[in-house]
Amino acid sequence: MTTHSHTGPARAAVILAAGQGTRMKSRLPKVLHPVGGRAMLDHAIDAAEALGCERIVVVVGTHSPEVRAHVVARLGEAAIAIQDPPMGTGHAVLCAREALNGFDGQVVITYGDVPLLKAHDIAPVFEAADALSVIGFEARDPGAYGRLVIRGGELAAITEAKEASAEVLAIRTCNSGVMSAPARVLFDLLDKVGNDNAKGEYYLTDVVQLGREAGVPTRAVMASEDAVMGVNAQSELAEAEALFQKVQRDTFLARGVTMPAPDTVHFAWDTDLEAGVVVEPYVVFGPGVKVASGARIRSFSHMEGATVGEDAIVGPYARLRPGARLDRDVHIGNFVEVKNSHIGEGAKANHLSYLGDGQVGPRANIGAGTIFCNYDGVFKHKTTVGEGAFVGSNSSLVAPVTIGAGAMTASGSVITEDVPDGALALGRATQTVKDGWAARFMQMMTAKKASQKK
Amino acid sequence: MTTHSHTGPARAAVILAAGQGTRMKSRLPKVLHPVGGRAMLDHAIDAAEALGCERIVVVVGTHSPEVRAHVVARLGEAAIAIQDPPMGTGHAVLCAREALNGFDGQVVITYGDVPLLKAHDIAPVFEAADALSVIGFEARDPGAYGRLVIRGGELAAITEAKEASAEVLAIRTCNSGVMSAPARVLFDLLDKVGNDNAKGEYYLTDVVQLGREAGVPTRAVMASEDAVMGVNAQSELAEAEALFQKVQRDTFLARGVTMPAPDTVHFAWDTDLEAGVVVEPYVVFGPGVKVASGARIRSFSHMEGATVGEDAIVGPYARLRPGARLDRDVHIGNFVEVKNSHIGEGAKANHLSYLGDGQVGPRANIGAGTIFCNYDGVFKHKTTVGEGAFVGSNSSLVAPVTIGAGAMTASGSVITEDVPDGALALGRATQTVKDGWAARFMQMMTAKKASQKK
Amino acid sequence: MTTHSHTGPARAAVILAAGQGTRMKSRLPKVLHPVGGRAMLDHAIDAAEALGCERIVVVVGTHSPEVRAHVVARLGEAAIAIQDPPMGTGHAVLCAREALNGFDGQVVITYGDVPLLKAHDIAPVFEAADALSVIGFEARDPGAYGRLVIRGGELAAITEAKEASAEVLAIRTCNSGVMSAPARVLFDLLDKVGNDNAKGEYYLTDVVQLGREAGVPTRAVMASEDAVMGVNAQSELAEAEALFQKVQRDTFLARGVTMPAPDTVHFAWDTDLEAGVVVEPYVVFGPGVKVASGARIRSFSHMEGATVGEDAIVGPYARLRPGARLDRDVHIGNFVEVKNSHIGEGAKANHLSYLGDGQVGPRANIGAGTIFCNYDGVFKHKTTVGEGAFVGSNSSLVAPVTIGAGAMTASGSVITEDVPDGALALGRATQTVKDGWAARFMQMMTAKKASQKK
Repeated sequence: MTTHSHTGPARAAVILAAGQGTRMKSRLPKVLHPVGGRAMLDHAIDAAEALGCERIVVVVGTHSPEVRAHVVARLGEAAIAIQDPPMGTGHAVLCAREALNGFDGQVVITYGDVPLLKAHDIAPVFEAADALSVIGFEARDPGAYGRLVIRGGELAAITEAKEASAEVLAIRTCNSGVMSAPARVLFDLLDKVGNDNAKGEYYLTDVVQLGREAGVPTRAVMASEDAVMGVNAQSELAEAEALFQKVQRDTFLARGVTMPAPDTVHFAWDTDLEAGVVVEPYVVFGPGVKVASGARIRSFSHMEGATVGEDAIVGPYARLRPGARLDRDVHIGNFVEVKNSHIGEGAKANHLSYLGDGQVGPRANIGAGTIFCNYDGVFKHKTTVGEGAFVGSNSSLVAPVTIGAGAMTASGSVITEDVPDGALALGRATQTVKDGWAARFMQMMTAKKASQKK
Repeated sequence: MTTHSHTGPARAAVILAAGQGTRMKSRLPKVLHPVGGRAMLDHAIDAAEALGCERIVVVVGTHSPEVRAHVVARLGEAAIAIQDPPMGTGHAVLCAREALNGFDGQVVITYGDVPLLKAHDIAPVFEAADALSVIGFEARDPGAYGRLVIRGGELAAITEAKEASAEVLAIRTCNSGVMSAPARVLFDLLDKVGNDNAKGEYYLTDVVQLGREAGVPTRAVMASEDAVMGVNAQSELAEAEALFQKVQRDTFLARGVTMPAPDTVHFAWDTDLEAGVVVEPYVVFGPGVKVASGARIRSFSHMEGATVGEDAIVGPYARLRPGARLDRDVHIGNFVEVKNSHIGEGAKANHLSYLGDGQVGPRANIGAGTIFCNYDGVFKHKTTVGEGAFVGSNSSLVAPVTIGAGAMTASGSVITEDVPDGALALGRATQTVKDGWAARFMQMMTAKKASQKK
Repeated sequence: MTTHSHTGPARAAVILAAGQGTRMKSRLPKVLHPVGGRAMLDHAIDAAEALGCERIVVVVGTHSPEVRAHVVARLGEAAIAIQDPPMGTGHAVLCAREALNGFDGQVVITYGDVPLLKAHDIAPVFEAADALSVIGFEARDPGAYGRLVIRGGELAAITEAKEASAEVLAIRTCNSGVMSAPARVLFDLLDKVGNDNAKGEYYLTDVVQLGREAGVPTRAVMASEDAVMGVNAQSELAEAEALFQKVQRDTFLARGVTMPAPDTVHFAWDTDLEAGVVVEPYVVFGPGVKVASGARIRSFSHMEGATVGEDAIVGPYARLRPGARLDRDVHIGNFVEVKNSHIGEGAKANHLSYLGDGQVGPRANIGAGTIFCNYDGVFKHKTTVGEGAFVGSNSSLVAPVTIGAGAMTASGSVITEDVPDGALALGRATQTVKDGWAARFMQMMTAKKASQKK
C-alpha cells in the first residue's frame, strides 16, 4: 500500500462497503460500479491512501464475494472485515475492530459508495487530534438528511429529519456520515450504542450524543454537497459521473488543453493530457491514456491504455486499445484499430486497418485496408514492419512476419514470408478478363429476378 | 386494430392531421416527422388504441397523399376522413362524422402533431360520461394560449388570449385543444358553431360556450404542459424529441440499466433493454432493438432492428442492422457491421468486418477484415459458418458458401466453394519477392517527384 | 480584399491582435485558435470586410510570426502593423497609424480575440460621423469591467471598476473596448494619452475623457454581451464555440433542417445545408460542406470539404474528406471514407471502403471492403469506375486503373489492369482444400498451449 506522509497521529480508515445496493438493480455489486472508469470503492481507497492511512479496513457483506475479492486483490486479506448479518452502520464499524488490530491513532469512517470524496475534503477531520469530527455539507435540498446542530463552534447534535423540530429542520447543514475520532474513543463509544429503534439497528451517528455525554469534544468540518454525494441508484451513479467529468474537463481546460466542445469529451480517472493537446468533439478516454503536447485527438476516437506522442494525429474514428504506443508525429486515421503495437515516429496508418501485436518502424506507411493477421486461432503472433517500409493497400500480413526496412508489398498481397530490406513482395493472383461476361450475367440475372416477381 | 379493455361507454378518437405544417419547411408532411423514430401521427394513434377506442378516424387534407397512405396502411380506408378545403378545427371534426358511421359512445379529439400525449394522460376525459371534457395544462408562459376559466369545478369558458381581460390573462391554466364528449352531443354542438370571425373559420373551442348554453356539463382535466406540447416547427420537433428522450433515459435508469452518460444515449420508441444492461456514451438505438441482461453496448454503436443476447459485447463502433441476432456472449467489435445474420453463442467478429445474410455458429471466430460477399449485383446470397470455425483475417467468403464446423480458412483467402468440417481452405496466391526492387523504385519515383517540382 | 458597399464616410478597421495570450497555455497563438473551424482573427477580419472597410490593419506582436504570416496570406503586407514592445491598447492603435497611410474616414477598433462580433453589431458605431462611439453591453455580472457612464444620451465617462464609486459600480452597462472615431480625431486624442498609471501603459479608453475635454461628441451604442465576449482562456474559447454553435443550430432549424438532437450536431462557420436536409445525432461538419435538400446525414458522420447532392444518404459512420462530391441519390455508408472523388448519381458504397482520388459513374456499386489503392508511396493515382459497374466485395483497385461501364470485378480480386465495358475481371487465386488439416492443427496448438501453462 502506498502511504502518503502527513503530520500528527497515525491514521486509519474504515470504509463501509457492506450494503447490498439493491436499488441499483444490477448483478454488479454497487461499490464496484465505476465512476470515471474506476470502481467507486477504489476511489474511496485512493482517498484513504492519499491521507496517509497506515491501515485501511473495508467492511464487506457476505452477499458479494466480488467485493471481497476486489479488496483482497488490492489491499490483501488483512484489509477485510466481514459484517454478517448487517445490523446498522455502528455495527459495521465495530466489525472492523479486529482488523484494526490494536491500532491506536485516529480512525476515519468513509463509504464505498461516495466516489467523489477526495483526501483534501477529508483531511480537516484529522486537525483536532482528540475530537470526534463529522463532515457536514450545506444541502441544496436538506429533505430527509440528518441535521448538524452546531452551537458555539461545537457539534451539539446530529438530529434525524423525522425527529427534528421545525427549527432544526430549517438547518441546511447536514450529516455526510463521514466522521473521525481517536480509535479508542470511537470503539468505547460504539460499545455503548444501542439498537432500541424502529429497525433494531446500531447507528453510527449515535456516537455523537454519547461522545458529548462522555465529555469528548465534538466538531463539524464542512465539505461540498457534490463531494459527499452517495450513490444508491443508477440515476445517482450517472450524476456522480457527470460531476466527475465536469471536474476533469475544467482541469484540462485550465491546463491548456483545447476542447471546442468539452462536454462531449469523456475522461477516465487517470487520463493524462499535456498542455497543447487538442481534443475534438466526441472522444472517449478509457483508463490508462497519456497524450503528449501538440497531439490532436480527432472526433469519434476511443482510446484505452494507449500512449500518444507529440504532434501525433489520432482519428477521426481511431480506436486505440491497450498497448498502443504511438511515437511523435504518428498518424492513425479513419477506422483504424491499434492494439499492443508500437508505431514509430512519423509512421502512418490512415484508413480501415487493424494493427495488432505489431512493431512499425519510423516513417513506414501502412496502406488502406491492411490487416495484421495476428491470430491463428490459439496463439497471437507479431508483425514487424521496418523503417520507411511501404505496405500496399489491402495487404494481409500473416504473423509472425517481418517486412524489411524500405521494403514494399504490392497492393492486395497476402504476405506470409519475411520480406528483405528494400525488396518488393507480391502475393496476389494474375488478373484475367472475360469479355462481355458481366453484360450477359446482368442480363440473365435481371431476367431471372423479373420472372420471380411474376 | 388492437383495442384495449376499459370500463364505461364505447370510445372513439378523431385525430386531426389535416394541417399543412408549412412552418416545418420540409417536404415530409408534418405529422409524419418522427419522435423517437416513430411518426408523430403514430404516437397519436397508439394513444387512441391504448385507450381502447373502437373507432379511430384520422382527418387528413388533400395536400398530403403520404399522410393518407400512412393511415390506410395502418388502419385501413375506413379510418380516413378528408377535410377539403380546411375551414377550421370545428369543421375538421365535422368531416369525421361520416367515417364514425353512427358511433354512439364517447369521442375524444386529439392531434397528429402532439406526439407526447399518452393514453394515461387522456383517460380522465372519459370519466364523466355525459360531460364535455377539455384537457388543460398549467403553462410556464401562457402567452397566446386560450385560457380555461374554471368556476365552481366547472369549465365556465375558454377565452382566447386576444379577447381576454387582464384578469383572465392572469390565468395560467390553458387549453390543450384535446376534448371529449358523447358523440351525439359533440356533433349537435358542432352543427351550431358559426364562422363569424376574422378568419372565417369554424372553431372547435366554440362548443364549450354552446354546450354550456345547452346545459351540457363542462369540465377540465389536467395534463402536464410537456404532454400536450404541439409541434409546428423544426425547433419544436427537436424539443419534443428531447422530452421523449428524457423520459426514456429516466425509465431505463430506474429499471437498472447502467449509463454513465445517459444524455448521450438515444432511444427509439420501442427500445427494450433489460435490467443489468450497460450502455456506454454515444449510442444510438433505432427502432426494433432488444438487449438482454448483462450485455454491454459500447461507445459509438448504432443499432436498428437487432436482438442482443445476455452478456454480449457490442462495439465500440458496432453497426447492427435489421435482422442482426446475437446470441449470448457474442462479441461484435470495432468497425463491424452485421445485417440479417444470426450469430451463435460465444462467436466473435471483432474487427473491420461485414457480416451480411449470414449464419455464424457458436464459438466461431471471424478474423479481422472479413467480408461476407453476399451480393452478386442482383441477388443476395447466404454465408454459413459452422460451429467453432476459424475464418482467417481478410477473408472474402463468396456467398452462397458454407464453412464447415471446426474448419479454417487461411488469412487473405477468397473462398468460393464450400469447406468441409475440420478442413483448411486456402485461396491465395503464392508470395514472390523481388530483391532490391522497392529501393530502386522509391529512388526513381522520388527523383521524378523532385524533377516535377522544378 | 472584398469590400461591401455602405453609405457615409470611408471606413477602416484596426484589429488589435498583439496580445500574447499566455493564459491559453498553447503553442498556437491565441487569435489563431478557431471558433466554428475558423481562426478568431479571421472572424474579426470578416466583420471588418462586411462593414466595407477599405483599409484593415492588424496590429501584431513580434512574438507570433504565425499571426503575421496568417494576416499577410489573407490581406497582404500592407495590413500589418507591428507593436513592439507592447505598451497598452492606446499604444497598439497608434502603431497602426503608419499602415493607415493617411486614411481620412472613420476608424473602428476591434479585437482579434472577439470572434462572435458581427458587422451588424458594429455598424451602429458609424452612424454618427463626427462622434467617438463606444460599443457597450449589459453585463450579467459586471464585476471588473469598465462601466459606461451615460448622461443625457452622451457617454460621459468610462470608469474602471477599481476606481468606481458604489454608485458607478451599480451600473451594468460595460465597455466592450470596441470604439470608432474619425481617423484624425482618434489619432489626435491618442497623441495626448499618457502612461501615468500603475502599469505604465497607454490606455485606449482614455480617449473618451480627452475627447470630451476637446469637445468631441461621445456616445455609446449597445451590443449583446455574447457578441462582445473576449477569449483569454481555453474555457472561454469553449464558451465562444458553444455560443457560435447555438446560433448555427437555431439558424438551420429555422431554415427547415430536421435535427432530432441539434445539440449533438457541430457546424463550421461556412456549413451550408438546404431546407429539407435531415441530420441525425452526432454529426461533425468541418469547413467547406454543402448539402442539398432531401439528403440525410446519418449518425457518427464526419464531413470536411464535401458536397452532397439531393436525396443522398451519408452514413452512419461516413467520412467525407475534401474533394468528396456526391451526386443525387448517392449512398455512402458504414465505415466508408471518400476523398477527392466524384461519385455519380445513384452510386453506392455502403460498407468498409476507401474511395480516394476516384471517379465513380452513376449507379455503380462498390462492394463491401473495396479499397481504391491510390498511393504508390510517392504519387497518387486515379481510379475510374464506369456507369453501372459492379465492383465485387473486398476488391483492390490498383490505380491508375479503369473499370468499364457495366463491367464487374470478382469478389476478392486485385485489379491492376483496365477492365473493358461489360467484361468480368478476376484476380484471385484458385481455392484449395486440405481435408482434416484444421482439426489436426487446432488439436496440436491447443495441446501446445496447455503444455505452456504448466
